[in-house]
Amino acid sequence: MSHEITSAKFASDKSLSHPLWSGDFYNEGTGKDDIFDTLKEECGVFGVYGHSDAASLSYYGLHSLQHRGEESCGMCVADGKEFNYHRGMGLVKEVFDKDKMASLVGNMSIGHVRYSTSGDSRLANAQPLIFKYRDGDLAIATNGNIVNAPQIRHELEQSGSIFQTTSDTEVVAHLIARSSKNVVEAAKDALARIVGGYAFLIMTNDKLLVASDPHGLRPITMGKLGDSYIFSSESCALETVGAELLRDIQPGELLILDKDGLKEDRYTEPQRKALCAMEYIYFARPDSDLNGSNLHASRKRMGSRMALESFVDADIVTGVPDSSISAAIGYAEQTGIPYELGLIKNKYTGRTFIQPSQELREKGVKMKLSAVRGVVEGQRVVMIDDSIVRGTTCLRIVNLLREAGATEVHVRITSPPFKNPCYYGIDTPDRKELIASNKTVEEICREINADSLAFLSPEGLISAVGGDNANDPSGGLCLACFNNDYPTTLDFGGEEKAGCGC
Amino acid sequence: MSHEITSAKFASDKSLSHPLWSGDFYNEGTGKDDIFDTLKEECGVFGVYGHSDAASLSYYGLHSLQHRGEESCGMCVADGKEFNYHRGMGLVKEVFDKDKMASLVGNMSIGHVRYSTSGDSRLANAQPLIFKYRDGDLAIATNGNIVNAPQIRHELEQSGSIFQTTSDTEVVAHLIARSSKNVVEAAKDALARIVGGYAFLIMTNDKLLVASDPHGLRPITMGKLGDSYIFSSESCALETVGAELLRDIQPGELLILDKDGLKEDRYTEPQRKALCAMEYIYFARPDSDLNGSNLHASRKRMGSRMALESFVDADIVTGVPDSSISAAIGYAEQTGIPYELGLIKNKYTGRTFIQPSQELREKGVKMKLSAVRGVVEGQRVVMIDDSIVRGTTCLRIVNLLREAGATEVHVRITSPPFKNPCYYGIDTPDRKELIASNKTVEEICREINADSLAFLSPEGLISAVGGDNANDPSGGLCLACFNNDYPTTLDFGGEEKAGCGC
Amino acid sequence: MSHEITSAKFASDKSLSHPLWSGDFYNEGTGKDDIFDTLKEECGVFGVYGHSDAASLSYYGLHSLQHRGEESCGMCVADGKEFNYHRGMGLVKEVFDKDKMASLVGNMSIGHVRYSTSGDSRLANAQPLIFKYRDGDLAIATNGNIVNAPQIRHELEQSGSIFQTTSDTEVVAHLIARSSKNVVEAAKDALARIVGGYAFLIMTNDKLLVASDPHGLRPITMGKLGDSYIFSSESCALETVGAELLRDIQPGELLILDKDGLKEDRYTEPQRKALCAMEYIYFARPDSDLNGSNLHASRKRMGSRMALESFVDADIVTGVPDSSISAAIGYAEQTGIPYELGLIKNKYTGRTFIQPSQELREKGVKMKLSAVRGVVEGQRVVMIDDSIVRGTTCLRIVNLLREAGATEVHVRITSPPFKNPCYYGIDTPDRKELIASNKTVEEICREINADSLAFLSPEGLISAVGGDNANDPSGGLCLACFNNDYPTTLDFGGEEKAGCGC
Amino acid sequence: MSHEITSAKFASDKSLSHPLWSGDFYNEGTGKDDIFDTLKEECGVFGVYGHSDAASLSYYGLHSLQHRGEESCGMCVADGKEFNYHRGMGLVKEVFDKDKMASLVGNMSIGHVRYSTSGDSRLANAQPLIFKYRDGDLAIATNGNIVNAPQIRHELEQSGSIFQTTSDTEVVAHLIARSSKNVVEAAKDALARIVGGYAFLIMTNDKLLVASDPHGLRPITMGKLGDSYIFSSESCALETVGAELLRDIQPGELLILDKDGLKEDRYTEPQRKALCAMEYIYFARPDSDLNGSNLHASRKRMGSRMALESFVDADIVTGVPDSSISAAIGYAEQTGIPYELGLIKNKYTGRTFIQPSQELREKGVKMKLSAVRGVVEGQRVVMIDDSIVRGTTCLRIVNLLREAGATEVHVRITSPPFKNPCYYGIDTPDRKELIASNKTVEEICREINADSLAFLSPEGLISAVGGDNANDPSGGLCLACFNNDYPTTLDFGGEEKAGCGC
Repeated sequence: MSHEITSAKFASDKSLSHPLWSGDFYNEGTGKDDIFDTLKEECGVFGVYGHSDAASLSYYGLHSLQHRGEESCGMCVADGKEFNYHRGMGLVKEVFDKDKMASLVGNMSIGHVRYSTSGDSRLANAQPLIFKYRDGDLAIATNGNIVNAPQIRHELEQSGSIFQTTSDTEVVAHLIARSSKNVVEAAKDALARIVGGYAFLIMTNDKLLVASDPHGLRPITMGKLGDSYIFSSESCALETVGAELLRDIQPGELLILDKDGLKEDRYTEPQRKALCAMEYIYFARPDSDLNGSNLHASRKRMGSRMALESFVDADIVTGVPDSSISAAIGYAEQTGIPYELGLIKNKYTGRTFIQPSQELREKGVKMKLSAVRGVVEGQRVVMIDDSIVRGTTCLRIVNLLREAGATEVHVRITSPPFKNPCYYGIDTPDRKELIASNKTVEEICREINADSLAFLSPEGLISAVGGDNANDPSGGLCLACFNNDYPTTLDFGGEEKAGCGC
Repeated sequence: MSHEITSAKFASDKSLSHPLWSGDFYNEGTGKDDIFDTLKEECGVFGVYGHSDAASLSYYGLHSLQHRGEESCGMCVADGKEFNYHRGMGLVKEVFDKDKMASLVGNMSIGHVRYSTSGDSRLANAQPLIFKYRDGDLAIATNGNIVNAPQIRHELEQSGSIFQTTSDTEVVAHLIARSSKNVVEAAKDALARIVGGYAFLIMTNDKLLVASDPHGLRPITMGKLGDSYIFSSESCALETVGAELLRDIQPGELLILDKDGLKEDRYTEPQRKALCAMEYIYFARPDSDLNGSNLHASRKRMGSRMALESFVDADIVTGVPDSSISAAIGYAEQTGIPYELGLIKNKYTGRTFIQPSQELREKGVKMKLSAVRGVVEGQRVVMIDDSIVRGTTCLRIVNLLREAGATEVHVRITSPPFKNPCYYGIDTPDRKELIASNKTVEEICREINADSLAFLSPEGLISAVGGDNANDPSGGLCLACFNNDYPTTLDFGGEEKAGCGC
Repeated sequence: MSHEITSAKFASDKSLSHPLWSGDFYNEGTGKDDIFDTLKEECGVFGVYGHSDAASLSYYGLHSLQHRGEESCGMCVADGKEFNYHRGMGLVKEVFDKDKMASLVGNMSIGHVRYSTSGDSRLANAQPLIFKYRDGDLAIATNGNIVNAPQIRHELEQSGSIFQTTSDTEVVAHLIARSSKNVVEAAKDALARIVGGYAFLIMTNDKLLVASDPHGLRPITMGKLGDSYIFSSESCALETVGAELLRDIQPGELLILDKDGLKEDRYTEPQRKALCAMEYIYFARPDSDLNGSNLHASRKRMGSRMALESFVDADIVTGVPDSSISAAIGYAEQTGIPYELGLIKNKYTGRTFIQPSQELREKGVKMKLSAVRGVVEGQRVVMIDDSIVRGTTCLRIVNLLREAGATEVHVRITSPPFKNPCYYGIDTPDRKELIASNKTVEEICREINADSLAFLSPEGLISAVGGDNANDPSGGLCLACFNNDYPTTLDFGGEEKAGCGC
Repeated sequence: MSHEITSAKFASDKSLSHPLWSGDFYNEGTGKDDIFDTLKEECGVFGVYGHSDAASLSYYGLHSLQHRGEESCGMCVADGKEFNYHRGMGLVKEVFDKDKMASLVGNMSIGHVRYSTSGDSRLANAQPLIFKYRDGDLAIATNGNIVNAPQIRHELEQSGSIFQTTSDTEVVAHLIARSSKNVVEAAKDALARIVGGYAFLIMTNDKLLVASDPHGLRPITMGKLGDSYIFSSESCALETVGAELLRDIQPGELLILDKDGLKEDRYTEPQRKALCAMEYIYFARPDSDLNGSNLHASRKRMGSRMALESFVDADIVTGVPDSSISAAIGYAEQTGIPYELGLIKNKYTGRTFIQPSQELREKGVKMKLSAVRGVVEGQRVVMIDDSIVRGTTCLRIVNLLREAGATEVHVRITSPPFKNPCYYGIDTPDRKELIASNKTVEEICREINADSLAFLSPEGLISAVGGDNANDPSGGLCLACFNNDYPTTLDFGGEEKAGCGC
């Protein structure tokens, strides 16, 4: 890991007529204000084995994972004979009503929340995907991405397979269905064939299978509620349904649950643990634990470490809500500079919200985020954020603070510069759009109109994360987006597949 | 074809406390009043080749075929590069709005309306089904049923295929995708492999294929609108979009439309023409033409013939709306007995309508159909209906007329007794529920509380249909539901599949 | 009543490029195809006194009156203590669901269906209107129009009244509330003060009042169901709920229903009976009875009389659906010319339907109504319609028949020429838009592109209507739209109010 | 103001099987989890004068006031000739879509968001209310309650007025309409007649009137955006639309805006300033300013003062989200005890959310709020909340913390004990349900299962609020809910009216 200059300081341009301001603040095409859309979430999964009200638990569990995917959701419940399922576009509370829930009878279930990826928010891709095959019914829910899915898909198509979705999940279903082995062995073969970062929930009429990729890139945890087992992308959903967190699923592991109980098996040898660092930095809820480490506490440590690495004298510390609140508290605690609510997010904004016209925006109408003049005016502000992707969002927030009267804005990012796309389930822009891949810290500081800018060092990040892998030099983390060190091969002779394959 | 006694006459039971009255008038389970649900429709298809506004034409075309399927609908439009599609539950006017229509760009399209079959009204089965396969995109819309679909599906599953729907259409997609030939040859092989009654619209990124089964069991017509070709289950939809009716697709025919224009090919030799007689009797709109014969005119001839075969002296003739209006007019014209609106259907009743409680029904609340007291009171009524399936509906209507003061009710059915289930796309009950399969005409007459009852003879039906096949002894019709003479083999060593496979 | 020339015959213009064709076929502004919108309905009311499930009866009753108003509906139920009510935009089946119905508890109710009038379809105007006043709760539902409402409203405003709707009903509520008498006496005073054509249902916490205007211009009938009383704009709704028709409410009558039973009172002396002739000709359902005369039978007689007055030799008779079917049957029966379904209406068209673009319409896309080529082609057609308002609709239908191959089209209108606006509840255009007010029959015939045209004579209409007032020279009818003989004064020194005041 | 004992400390009952636990955590009747519903909001208003896109500004303004009322909303826009308006049930983003917005043309508008009050969430009560009266159109939007509305309403009804809503606003409309003076003078008379706490926006076709009650009980602020004036219940909405905050409307003030510009008038002499203290403590957004004081800053000072008044040694400080976050930060800052996210609120929970069954709740399913085990486990927790109403919510949150492993829970309430109902617009329970009105602090402490409990003193509250009235002994606040000192008379010889009259 190379040491790089991760902080900068200079007189910023305090004029607000910045050329970027009106350029891409709002994405007119998608109707979305992308102020919080810097990185797209990569879906969440939730599974239940052995509870008579599996559907209700899934409803509350998926609701707790809603931040991992707001666009579509679904669940499939097995009653021993057949699958009962429902999928739809929208939030959990919108897609499922009492009538729908009443029809979802069974004691085993898998569920899914999904984020939109560009231009592909069709209902057909909503998970779990449901198939009929030789041995009965098959349902699959995934979080993550299969890097070599295009190659496998091509091979399958050449030998006559048809596909109804663009999801990686369908590739795995074909591999299982084509095997002459039983579903457990077939799933092992299929998982051994694919390369990527993923958590899989696979359900047949009488079995639930749970798998994590060989590096444990995507999180998946196991809990217990009475005699039943619960599986969730994040532990917060276990807490919500009253389940006790048992442990994280290990790299290369395959759990099989059926009438014989829980069998802990594996489909490959574990490889170096490389859990997505962005889960710690940005995605997971602060009340989740990952690898033995609470997220709020980890983020507070990122803030503290940031304060030690790049202290700046100021009047107040504020965090960009919601993801950077914890880090801001940590920074404030470490430095003694008061933590304030300098930025407020409007909790009612959502899909159906009408965005202001260009003219109104230019006149100052702002919706999702506002800077609090009564807090910020006349103050030197340390603004804590979790990452900078294109830089445009950061610029806008700095400008909001300046408009509200901040005399200085010092930006502190609780992650290293984001330079490389993700191939394991996070929807990142091309490298040429990643500002840190193309500009120096000084240039970025100027671009975002900050008085100073600093990123957290990789070492700082690793030390802040802590948890079970604290002794591993890389902290058990995948840091590829920062250091280009991808845990899997990306070379398949053809197109490899970035982004999210859920 | 055996000659059977098809009329009966005796003193009916005029008391209204008939044991069947409250038994199954309303289907509480489905929330449906099945007074008009005696036979379920078997879907409709509509295709466009070579029109810049293919989607709009499809919208109006499918709307005209709405009577063939009210539960779900969909269309897929090809723009030369990719497929744009939308499917949903509900009527055409509910599923498609201006925004959806605006996104359906392209000059080739296929569309579908679908009726629910029991317990299986999932959105996943809404057509057209869309697949990705080796050579690109594939969309298929079907009307009909493949008798040997279970066997083929079993074979495909054994060799590793997965299925996402219960539709026969998916079987055909697999057969095409697994072939090593080009799509036209692959489609020919697939069609040669299946047995049943069907019309298929198959679309790739640059081709539209149209096929009819070897007996022409299900109708499919071709029209021309300027330089573009239009295909529709019924000619009424051609008229709606201003297209000129060219001809019906012939048994065993496969039309291929692509940049080289229209190629008239076939995948098998034609076998004896056997178009579904129920299309003439009940399903098709009166403004459609089938095999050169207008439906309203055919039905009037059925009424006239009925009058000749089973005249009864009476004061008025009334038809059960909407399907028996034409026949009633014919009967009245032939006999000189005045045709009257003795029965009125409420046009606003539909899916969301709240059915009256048992108590209110017993007190006389009636919704879908009412007898017009001012017309019927004190009159001897000839009531014309198209068919008797279980007999319960007919009983109710007779009783409605009696309650409204009819002194005699003579039922005349413009088809032979319905005795055998359909394997070619009509959702019929089991043979043991078909009243004509289990009772004599006298018994049925008593059961439906009529003063007399007569069915049209098969010969009468054939002569009334007329059209292009008037010289064929069977009139070019499939009469299997009446005479058990199925045009295809039904023997596949396993389960054969009745009903509708759309 | 002057005798005028009401028929014409000459060589029509058979070219289809008629200047009117593309002009106003579709009303782009309202998104409506006004092909059937020649005259707007004037609302319907339904009341129940003394039935434990008053709301359910109202649901089915209003559903049966749906043809009188498709835009909004509502009902208010009294449980002795308070009012439970619900109103909404849309059809009865759309506005009321099971949850809503469950909340509508009580044994007395009034309900309403309402047609939109131009630009004023706000929910605020949906009836019944509900008020709180000195003596408790007050609900009012109306069918009709108060000619002097503007004057009364002006006076009320001058003395401090505020209005929340544009409905005449609110005027009456103010008059009642301002009186120092009890509600019955106050209602009598209020009704004596207003001039117009109306039926009123007025409900307090313990009383139901039913009133008809002094001329009985708008229909309102009374029925009995067990011990409860039912009131309905048309008798078809009585039949639907199983109630027995007792009689029509008489001009100037005020019925009072309360714990003392039914009291038959009146607020003024009856004046000459003048029931709206258009109810017979066009509005009421064929299964309703008005003044002792069944509507289907009356309309058949109009067709028969038409045949006697203006016979023309032809091959087929067809009626414009739905309102002219009965008359066409009568014409056919009288002449022996076969009655055929030459025109078909698409039953699925409705509010949400997307209208074809101008371009598609010019290319022949047609939606609501189609001419049946198989019936019409090569035939001389007698086309029966109920009225001609602006003439544009009639022209379009004639052209549809010609396009479908009719060789001659003879139009027979079963009413006299419509020359004068209605001030009693029908939404008619200005006199300058009424074609019969501005052109001779010959000119109209040319305008609508017919081979010949004839209107029914007023005498013919009166004789066809029949019923209780057959001996009255005017048949107990208001014929003002034909003969300018308005039963009430229209002179109020200011603006009088045409159209519908519901 | 009496000095009372406002803190308590003793060994709490740490068992979780507390009798209150399952009793009323969820309100099954309303389908609401009332964990955050301790006090109901009292509506919000937003007005625009002189901006060509008044409707869009109102949309964003009302959206910023959404926290003040989530149940219904509406706006009315004047274009100089007529009113264009829309109202509906639901959030701003749900009620208004692009089509609706496009129809709301005009440069003057008033809007409203409304909270439900028990059993009375009818659409008819959605504001602004719109009236027609002698001088044209009148629209009114209110925040607050008129104590003597029942008396005035009774008088109006006695003299013949009718009411269509239960809203106080309608009373004011009647008073204005009945006056013979012009609308400004009539409004002054009407406002002088009513007693209560309120902010009024009154719009005619050419004037906008803005009024605050004589004590300024409910907040209403004025801002400027270019040449246009903006009025809002809270300043956060001014900030959102880019307007500059000018000042708060003063007690007894009446602003008149018309073609002559802004006229600052008054309808009565100002009385002692008594702005609702709960606005500071709980209701207003932290980014709003009231009387020159930023809410976040005020709440931080409440937390600091709390720390001085009732320090307790502990490991972490946590606030109940969202309203107590600021105070918790202040407490932490003052004491040096770390501020942590010990409680997390699920941001996706809302109206349509399905509540867990009793069985699932007993098994630990929790939805809206969760305690973060990784933060709380093994810690002594100071839990900051804004108020205790019935005590049940507080008990639940304490128990959540204990279940998550907190070893001690010390509750600090940043307001004095809430003992008296509000008559000025806040929907409070009866005095007998207010726990502080019936129990000592020690008893409450035991009831909520806390290790210690303390309330902020009234003096502490006044000093923390600060702002323009810092020198006033009562801080310019209404503290009646704490000290029973109501600023207005409540004695009207009859029923006075508590709660919210919007």
